Amino acid sequence: MSIDASLRERAARVVPGGMYGHLNAALHGPGYPQFFVGGQGCRQLDADGREYIDLMCSWGPVVLGHRHPAVEAAVTAQLAAGDCLNGPGPVYVELAELMVETVPQADWVMFSKNGTDATTQALMVARAATGRTKVLMAHGSYHGADPWCTPSPSGTTPSERADLIEYTYNDLASAEEAAARAEGDVAAIIVTPFKHDSFEDQELAAPEFARGLRALADRIGAALVIDDVRGGWRLHLGGSWETLGVRPDLYAFSKAMANGHPIAAVTGVDALRGPAQTIYSTGSFWFNAAPMAAAKATIETLRDIDGVALIERAGTRLREGLAAQAASHGFVVNQTGPVQIPWLSFEGDTTLDKGMFWASACLREGVYLHPWHNWFLSAAHTDADIDRALLGTDAAFARLREEFGAD
Amino acid sequence: MSIDASLRERAARVVPGGMYGHLNAALHGPGYPQFFVGGQGCRQLDADGREYIDLMCSWGPVVLGHRHPAVEAAVTAQLAAGDCLNGPGPVYVELAELMVETVPQADWVMFSKNGTDATTQALMVARAATGRTKVLMAHGSYHGADPWCTPSPSGTTPSERADLIEYTYNDLASAEEAAARAEGDVAAIIVTPFKHDSFEDQELAAPEFARGLRALADRIGAALVIDDVRGGWRLHLGGSWETLGVRPDLYAFSKAMANGHPIAAVTGVDALRGPAQTIYSTGSFWFNAAPMAAAKATIETLRDIDGVALIERAGTRLREGLAAQAASHGFVVNQTGPVQIPWLSFEGDTTLDKGMFWASACLREGVYLHPWHNWFLSAAHTDADIDRALLGTDAAFARLREEFGAD
Repeated sequence: MSIDASLRERAARVVPGGMYGHLNAALHGPGYPQFFVGGQGCRQLDADGREYIDLMCSWGPVVLGHRHPAVEAAVTAQLAAGDCLNGPGPVYVELAELMVETVPQADWVMFSKNGTDATTQALMVARAATGRTKVLMAHGSYHGADPWCTPSPSGTTPSERADLIEYTYNDLASAEEAAARAEGDVAAIIVTPFKHDSFEDQELAAPEFARGLRALADRIGAALVIDDVRGGWRLHLGGSWETLGVRPDLYAFSKAMANGHPIAAVTGVDALRGPAQTIYSTGSFWFNAAPMAAAKATIETLRDIDGVALIERAGTRLREGLAAQAASHGFVVNQTGPVQIPWLSFEGDTTLDKGMFWASACLREGVYLHPWHNWFLSAAHTDADIDRALLGTDAAFARLREEFGAD
Repeated sequence: MSIDASLRERAARVVPGGMYGHLNAALHGPGYPQFFVGGQGCRQLDADGREYIDLMCSWGPVVLGHRHPAVEAAVTAQLAAGDCLNGPGPVYVELAELMVETVPQADWVMFSKNGTDATTQALMVARAATGRTKVLMAHGSYHGADPWCTPSPSGTTPSERADLIEYTYNDLASAEEAAARAEGDVAAIIVTPFKHDSFEDQELAAPEFARGLRALADRIGAALVIDDVRGGWRLHLGGSWETLGVRPDLYAFSKAMANGHPIAAVTGVDALRGPAQTIYSTGSFWFNAAPMAAAKATIETLRDIDGVALIERAGTRLREGLAAQAASHGFVVNQTGPVQIPWLSFEGDTTLDKGMFWASACLREGVYLHPWHNWFLSAAHTDADIDRALLGTDAAFARLREEFGAD
């Protein structure tokens, strides 16, 4: 029995189903290992000693590569002094200043732990500011896993979702209709910087949709909230909609902010500073200094090395390579989303049969990517790493052709 | 200007109000420093280099003392291998097994990050199991800071709290009445192991109240949830109501579980294993290996050194010392709650004038405790440390007598 299988067997006794949440390997397809023991740069090592070129980056958090020396040195130094104390460390101020300096929209910042903390806190601020209750969100968008937003209704109540009104991503008219249905009671419009729903091709935000949501929020006096938990720090260091020239009232950040260390943040405009002071939102570990030191080192490093450009370069090389391979093997594929946070699906593959087969074949070739969730690239992916990954994907396309034939 | 004042000035520009949440020093009283730079054992160092005997333990998380060597070694080793990966490490299984072994009620465990994550997740499991919506909670109990439970209504909506029905702590009849009002729709009864509301004397749970809640939950088919976020790992390693012989269906743990490293957990009974598998609850950092390694080292160390007995010894010495001092200075005080998580109030001090003055006087004497929130002791508090703290509290009582006169 493999080490992974043996760990799964033990886990099944002491955790419901053995595993849960987005890292549950049972959901990813055949052959995916559940347990990992190490990471270095853009490589990860599973419990049985198999190494992968990592195209998932732990579902987003790892943006500079695993065990980045500047980040780990900052964490080690902070842990050696003190981490969880009776108040924050000076690094709290330094990180807040750095974020306000880096994110043009930000006049202030509040830190927390989970992406869900940040989206929830952003809505609290919007509600405190407006005295209103309803939130407009795009149908199918993922904003976290609290009862108000988790994609599964199990364990949630109708009341917990009663304040949401849905619109359709990239359909401004649907957002206007949703606002009309709320009859003046809209506290916030929440939106992801691009459409990254699982199981579906991704969609970039149409510039006129982004500008239209901003205008709609202004017209009805609601806060525009960008949930940049997934996109943040890969598309633009100033917040993902800087690429479109549209600024929200509130940004929610997490994931890549500290290269894998646990922290989240909301940034806001000056008009929301007072309302933000009225909410009570906290957590036992929200002011721990080590993850703040990690975030400071991560953001400074991304800035100093132009991390976004490096990630974009890796993503472009991967996309072009995959496009050429798919064509040469006779497959029609859709590569969607920003190149830094890419996904590939096979045309007409509604059952995901081809996608699951291909992803598992990539895995056997030492390339870790995902059959129905977007991937993430990092600044640690060099041209050589992408070329090594493309060797694996090419072999996987060849196996797919043997199994399914060309399109 | 002190370093603390200068950091506060900078923080006020980039964080709403400069600080928020339970560590906001502005709420604690005059003289409290906001910023800390180090901790060692039961001592903390503020940004201006003043050292305190720490009777707050970072509001609970630090249970073995700051920078405990076994915990920090486990964290360092795990960080050196890998922390935030594409799946959990073997330590996930080892920690889950350790918790199931340590907590007699536990047949399984699910990990998360914040105490609020754990209480929220416990209610989701209870609702998934029962298909019901309502939750009975004690009026004034703190169960976290999500909109459903935060003590401030600002930024929350009526719908978000519509599923709560309140009862009175230690009043079984009130819980029965609350259940009756829910007309058969009770998913869970949530309760803290003792009453630890801020600004009030604490109350231990009456054994008949605890047994009565258990019987009530059984009779109406609801899950009994103990929110052991604050009490856990100080009163009993098997869950705080092991001291009363009452076992809940679900325990929520966090704070002291990993000696300051960010992790939370829900443990449950076998009957809830299936329902727990149906909820979708996750977070980007919930499976990070370093905090799990910290939790494993913390629980093993607490077990090996009989940490609860050490904390109880320190708490008893403190309580006896304070009682003698108060009497000798002519004050009538109430010392409430378990000795491990104590609080002291002055008889008739409804305005907290005496309590605030005394706490600030303790602070000036190098003893960090809190005027309106319970304190926390740790296994690092030796007799000598408590005696050193008592020197400070004695001086503070003397100042209080100069200012207010004896009772």
